[in-house]
Amino acid sequence: MVRRVCDDARMSEAFDAVDVIVTKRDRHELSDEQIRWVIDAYTRGVVADEQMSALGMAVLLNGMTRREIATWTQAMIASGERMDFSGLSRPTADKHSTGGVGDKITLPLAPLVAVFGVAVPQLSGRGLGHTGGTLDKLESISGWRASLSNAEMLAQLDDVGAVICAAGSGLAPADKKLYALRDVTGTVEAIPLIASSIMSKKIAEGTGALVLDVKVGSGAFMKTVDQARELARTMVALGTDAGVNTVALLTNMDVPLGLTAGNAVEVRESVEVLAGGGPPDVVELTVRLAQEMLQAAGRGGQDVAAALADGRAMDAWRRMIRAQGGDPDAPLPVARHTDQVRSPTDGVVTILDAYAVGLAAWRLGAGRARKEDPVQAGAGIELHVRPGAVVRAGEPLLTLHTDTPERFERARAALDGGIVIAPEGSRPDLLPLVIDRIDAGDAA
Amino acid sequence: MVRRVCDDARMSEAFDAVDVIVTKRDRHELSDEQIRWVIDAYTRGVVADEQMSALGMAVLLNGMTRREIATWTQAMIASGERMDFSGLSRPTADKHSTGGVGDKITLPLAPLVAVFGVAVPQLSGRGLGHTGGTLDKLESISGWRASLSNAEMLAQLDDVGAVICAAGSGLAPADKKLYALRDVTGTVEAIPLIASSIMSKKIAEGTGALVLDVKVGSGAFMKTVDQARELARTMVALGTDAGVNTVALLTNMDVPLGLTAGNAVEVRESVEVLAGGGPPDVVELTVRLAQEMLQAAGRGGQDVAAALADGRAMDAWRRMIRAQGGDPDAPLPVARHTDQVRSPTDGVVTILDAYAVGLAAWRLGAGRARKEDPVQAGAGIELHVRPGAVVRAGEPLLTLHTDTPERFERARAALDGGIVIAPEGSRPDLLPLVIDRIDAGDAA
Repeated sequence: MVRRVCDDARMSEAFDAVDVIVTKRDRHELSDEQIRWVIDAYTRGVVADEQMSALGMAVLLNGMTRREIATWTQAMIASGERMDFSGLSRPTADKHSTGGVGDKITLPLAPLVAVFGVAVPQLSGRGLGHTGGTLDKLESISGWRASLSNAEMLAQLDDVGAVICAAGSGLAPADKKLYALRDVTGTVEAIPLIASSIMSKKIAEGTGALVLDVKVGSGAFMKTVDQARELARTMVALGTDAGVNTVALLTNMDVPLGLTAGNAVEVRESVEVLAGGGPPDVVELTVRLAQEMLQAAGRGGQDVAAALADGRAMDAWRRMIRAQGGDPDAPLPVARHTDQVRSPTDGVVTILDAYAVGLAAWRLGAGRARKEDPVQAGAGIELHVRPGAVVRAGEPLLTLHTDTPERFERARAALDGGIVIAPEGSRPDLLPLVIDRIDAGDAA
Repeated sequence: MVRRVCDDARMSEAFDAVDVIVTKRDRHELSDEQIRWVIDAYTRGVVADEQMSALGMAVLLNGMTRREIATWTQAMIASGERMDFSGLSRPTADKHSTGGVGDKITLPLAPLVAVFGVAVPQLSGRGLGHTGGTLDKLESISGWRASLSNAEMLAQLDDVGAVICAAGSGLAPADKKLYALRDVTGTVEAIPLIASSIMSKKIAEGTGALVLDVKVGSGAFMKTVDQARELARTMVALGTDAGVNTVALLTNMDVPLGLTAGNAVEVRESVEVLAGGGPPDVVELTVRLAQEMLQAAGRGGQDVAAALADGRAMDAWRRMIRAQGGDPDAPLPVARHTDQVRSPTDGVVTILDAYAVGLAAWRLGAGRARKEDPVQAGAGIELHVRPGAVVRAGEPLLTLHTDTPERFERARAALDGGIVIAPEGSRPDLLPLVIDRIDAGDAA
């Protein structure tokens, strides 16, 4: 074997980065010691970005065993602080979605679960690319702020029972560094790295129960049910092993969730759900996830839908928004310009592609290309139809919203081929909204 | 598909690095345009090291087609200048070894070929790791300098007919950058990258004929004959396609070449060969490679061995060394300390492992761990036996040389298990010195 590293030079470190890379490259298992070292050394800057990206590609192509993924996750948790909610008087439950188009579920879900005495410490992110970010959506509410100290977060959980805020920089800093690297090196799609990235943050966050919403379809990371199931099983096993009561749902992301994709437009739709209305798919998924969270937190078997109908969830929402400086009664921002996409023909909508809609919303200004870019609160898309709708030529299918009308053209280009109108009598070929459920028994 | 790069942000570049990485990651062929862009953009610093290392790992694990390798090589050539020897009155031929232990063949070979009217423009490197570097060896000759301008090189080729010097920084700068990156990211061993790295420099160098010495065995990059044959075929095809008359020999590197491994000790052995003596394997390979080079340059069928026996090669050597400021009569440096490794038992030497000997010589100070480290001119190993030798207990097998005697212990540790003495009557199981020959017909 050609050894290009002097054994004198590396004496101060327990391992050599090239040896670790070559181990995975040559399809061998990494030892626990190698994994702990490489994550720690990467956090310290001893392992360079170009070495970690080569290792990331080797992991993507050659995979990791369950033991390797578990150790990798634990090593990322160990790179930072852990939160502790054991002082709260109620159990905690959190939800994580792997990201989709029109996925505003966190907004009605967190207050809905809080109604039933389970605290929801929802650390969320901003959007990058075609999937929106929960914090971006909430920031369209006048006065609302995403950043809370740990003490503020605890106090709000005790008082209101639900908080949606930005994750502090202290949780799993290794993951933060690695995620940014994967984003530019074509290694985002590695299931072991996706699973350990999500679960290291959720375990470090200290939630007692966790429900994972693993999206499948054109608008999701996972394009096939098999991939999504593998990711779900991996994450449920990681959570279970770490003492977090973890369940996953596989849900359909070939079509956007609900009838809006953007920021303020999604808040408006969420408020409709909290008022007892809203699109049936958003209501169904919100209720189902709430049931799963309550059950995982030991408070199952309650009439969740009733709390949407009778205003209790809306009350919790208003308290949650106010606690973070927001005015739940302030009018939501509206984009300065709109444009309609109309049906070119009579027929049936058979495809309304989530990725195309997400990309169009992003191009209208709802998302950002770089993490320092601002988003437009009013930008986004309203859907007037769902797959299965019978439409007439000239009937509006979508309304596009933006402050910058020069974006309409590129948004329309993104929709090209994403909406299919088939002859009357056709039927869309759709997966169900909830495709599968994975719990610790399936993941073992 | 998740697109995390804004199409606005990348408009100034023809491609996006992540798209190129993902193409190879997902086992698709890279287009010529993608390859030309990624090499050029990497040279310009637009593609970052961490992106190139991820691509390198994907190439290592997923391979490249012959077309991809050819385009990659051409792109690396296009990153820098090309030399031109067409003004010389004689044909040119060069030799490249993929690197082995005790491989001093370039030293007697270049002047030997020059005797027959073929110019040898031998651009060489320094050693890194357990294989020595030709320039390091020659620098143990008092006054000799490795750096020549292009004009000096041309003048010496016209006058002496042979030059061994450092490659200028203008040839294939993309390769220089990529090689350094591969060295620290576990991607040295990718056959497409090895082949394109070697051939981009050799084609840019402008030689008319090229003989490749592809080493196989414990002391070589290629551990198996099949790997070496694949590398040889790839390189011969690249050379042939670029108009360079290219031939490859596969030669044995399970055992060191000759009876020395180091710097000054290898120069001494080379001078013995030029004086008509020297170890039979070094003489055999020198003569065979000279025959191949002369034939490839259109001057085949000559009595090469005679020029070693009658002093013509030695005369050319002395002129070549003097032309670069060296004194061929100056005494060679001798290490201040020696130590002997003796046979523990009676028996037959069946294994004398090239990698173990190379690693020991390196630890004695003959090689460097980092490219800025100095080497010891006198350090290295003398072999007193070869596989097949019958030895008695206590008989010296090797002599270790170093200026820094604290290195003896780690050098001996490197030899552990590398020398096997079997019961009398045993026979070593060795491949022949020249295992195979690959020309354009085999590579097509």
